[in-house]
Amino acid sequence: MTNMVIAQSGGPSMVINQSLVGAVLAARKSTRIGKIFGARHGIAGILNDDYIDLRKPTGAMLDAIAATPSSALGSVRRKPTLDDCRAIFEAFKRKNVGYFFYIGGNDSADAARIVAERAAAEGYPLVCYHIPKTIDNDLRNCDHTPGFGSAARFVAMALKGDDLDNRALGGVKIDIIMGRDAGFLTAASALARENKGDGPHLIYLPERAFSLDGFAKDVEAVMKKEGRCVVAVSEGIRDANGTPIATLFANGEKDSHGNLQLSGTGALGDFLATHLKKATKITRVRADTFGYLQRSFPGVASVVDQKEARAAGAAAVKAALAGKITQGTIAIIRKPGKNYVVAFEPQPVQNAAKIARSMPDNFIAKNGHDVTPVFLNYVRPIVGELPHSAIFAVPKKS
Amino acid sequence: MTNMVIAQSGGPSMVINQSLVGAVLAARKSTRIGKIFGARHGIAGILNDDYIDLRKPTGAMLDAIAATPSSALGSVRRKPTLDDCRAIFEAFKRKNVGYFFYIGGNDSADAARIVAERAAAEGYPLVCYHIPKTIDNDLRNCDHTPGFGSAARFVAMALKGDDLDNRALGGVKIDIIMGRDAGFLTAASALARENKGDGPHLIYLPERAFSLDGFAKDVEAVMKKEGRCVVAVSEGIRDANGTPIATLFANGEKDSHGNLQLSGTGALGDFLATHLKKATKITRVRADTFGYLQRSFPGVASVVDQKEARAAGAAAVKAALAGKITQGTIAIIRKPGKNYVVAFEPQPVQNAAKIARSMPDNFIAKNGHDVTPVFLNYVRPIVGELPHSAIFAVPKKS
Repeated sequence: MTNMVIAQSGGPSMVINQSLVGAVLAARKSTRIGKIFGARHGIAGILNDDYIDLRKPTGAMLDAIAATPSSALGSVRRKPTLDDCRAIFEAFKRKNVGYFFYIGGNDSADAARIVAERAAAEGYPLVCYHIPKTIDNDLRNCDHTPGFGSAARFVAMALKGDDLDNRALGGVKIDIIMGRDAGFLTAASALARENKGDGPHLIYLPERAFSLDGFAKDVEAVMKKEGRCVVAVSEGIRDANGTPIATLFANGEKDSHGNLQLSGTGALGDFLATHLKKATKITRVRADTFGYLQRSFPGVASVVDQKEARAAGAAAVKAALAGKITQGTIAIIRKPGKNYVVAFEPQPVQNAAKIARSMPDNFIAKNGHDVTPVFLNYVRPIVGELPHSAIFAVPKKS
Repeated sequence: MTNMVIAQSGGPSMVINQSLVGAVLAARKSTRIGKIFGARHGIAGILNDDYIDLRKPTGAMLDAIAATPSSALGSVRRKPTLDDCRAIFEAFKRKNVGYFFYIGGNDSADAARIVAERAAAEGYPLVCYHIPKTIDNDLRNCDHTPGFGSAARFVAMALKGDDLDNRALGGVKIDIIMGRDAGFLTAASALARENKGDGPHLIYLPERAFSLDGFAKDVEAVMKKEGRCVVAVSEGIRDANGTPIATLFANGEKDSHGNLQLSGTGALGDFLATHLKKATKITRVRADTFGYLQRSFPGVASVVDQKEARAAGAAAVKAALAGKITQGTIAIIRKPGKNYVVAFEPQPVQNAAKIARSMPDNFIAKNGHDVTPVFLNYVRPIVGELPHSAIFAVPKKS
């Protein structure tokens, strides 16, 4: 019997605790796993000997944790150095740890890859699995990632409400949505459309070059047609040279993976609103930045996302115990066919690490500022049904 | 039989359509009311002859409208001039309108007061009622206002999720919450606290002078104690002279009631975050501005708020038909006693108009940056139960 360490890393999500609980419950079923240590704040907890005993909580308590947003073990953004790895293996040795599970996005997958490869190089016997999580939906080996469906659900609901608000008072409303490199979350705003004339009327993604001139023209065209305009903008939009628009205002803060701070500031929305007021004759322009609510708001998680996140955690433990792949990750694969069915496939951890994916071309409308029906069919089952909205039919002026 | 006009004004809410539907259904029951016109975009609809026939929709359709956030008739921010009033009476005369209902906050109550007083002065026979609505909770004749409970519920849920997010990654999180002059909505963030150490750890209200120095010191003290800090800040915070902090960055846009634009921009949050980074050694500081989601997010409305909003609409029509007060508003009065019981009391419209109320002193903690148990007891029944969150007990370091 060897012991196991599990930890969470990167940005929290509404369902990352489902993956934690899925893995813990699967581990509890095995006779080959001894102690189950939850390292607090990712690899920092291993380095600081800061653990929670995950054999202790009752099933009811674990279910309550699973239903709670954010990372119950705490999180970290830290790329392990060679020294970190050696310290980790010493800590693992002291605690007789043979299984390590790391829940997170592509940077966390890369951290798991570094630890796994280093363990092999240093001769430390470790079965190491990354468990996928990212609201950005940008792991290149997954049809979609746990966390995305719930964040997308928040975004779609927020846009739905905000579009109704804009119907009431008019003008232009700009909503800034998370997604550093991939536009999936911003694209999900299109699910808000239900009634004729519903926004978002324009959707700007990092996958297409953004120009301030084009933006003003697009908005003016919608204003002419609809008398109002709701715009969904990815925080990661960039110009024709690939330079993020946000670099014009960001405070330059970067994490250890070299990522610029985009969230936790309203600067991009304010910049776009100010530009519109200057470049057009539109007087009422407002901007909101959805911020961290997208990944943490309680009570709106997608049911499918919750189930899949839990299943991904369980699948990682099962695959680790099966032992076919010892440096692994779990890919979510959608089966072809009419019904929505997914499989959880163990793969080498390298498949998820570091390089993120973008929205494929067939998800993006030809005009560059909308999504396609192909994307809507892709995203609907992941997000689930949304609250319906009713509007009065407006009589035509005689 | 005379006809009736009903309209919505000011900022939308999650339950303003409940009041509309409550009034329409009550009017449909009366044999003394003929046609029911819904004026689109408040008094602008009356001036533009832009109406929806509210006898037409089925009960099911009205229920769907009631459950939909924002103002289904459209809204407006417009203070009626003398010329407006005369044009309104001419329009009313043409359409044989004897009843006028205006759903909105204190500015809308003032608009209703102007129309009612002018009608009396010009000899136009009009029964005119204001129906209360404001997420700010600042009508001075109401225990609380329809719309507040649901917005407060959104704020409490948002803070709950955001506090869990801050637990995971640490640092300081600043959340900017609506409330131009009154801190009720920001104060409701305190409902997010459930487990030991839960935020918000600091709550800044417009009712207490805000200083940047004091703010930095307060945050440093929380960081020392909790290792992290979540701050709820009202958009309306002001310095010791009463000058809004937001005037330092606001774009100066004002509505026809003379109110400065505070929402629809992230400038205040960004300013406070930048100040903290400069004034302290704290490196991770993030700010989100909840913006319009507070008044429009679907699916989180408080059940009590929904019921009361509908009842307020019905009460206005009944009072108008009773005829005791012809220039009226509906006050929500909480009965003394252990159980939560409210009454809907017809009052002269002047009681709700123009002058807003602030948080009473016994709702605000002595330290000036928190609320009291008296406030929590006041607000809980209006907001209803919140989703629960579970956290792991952290073992003490030996």
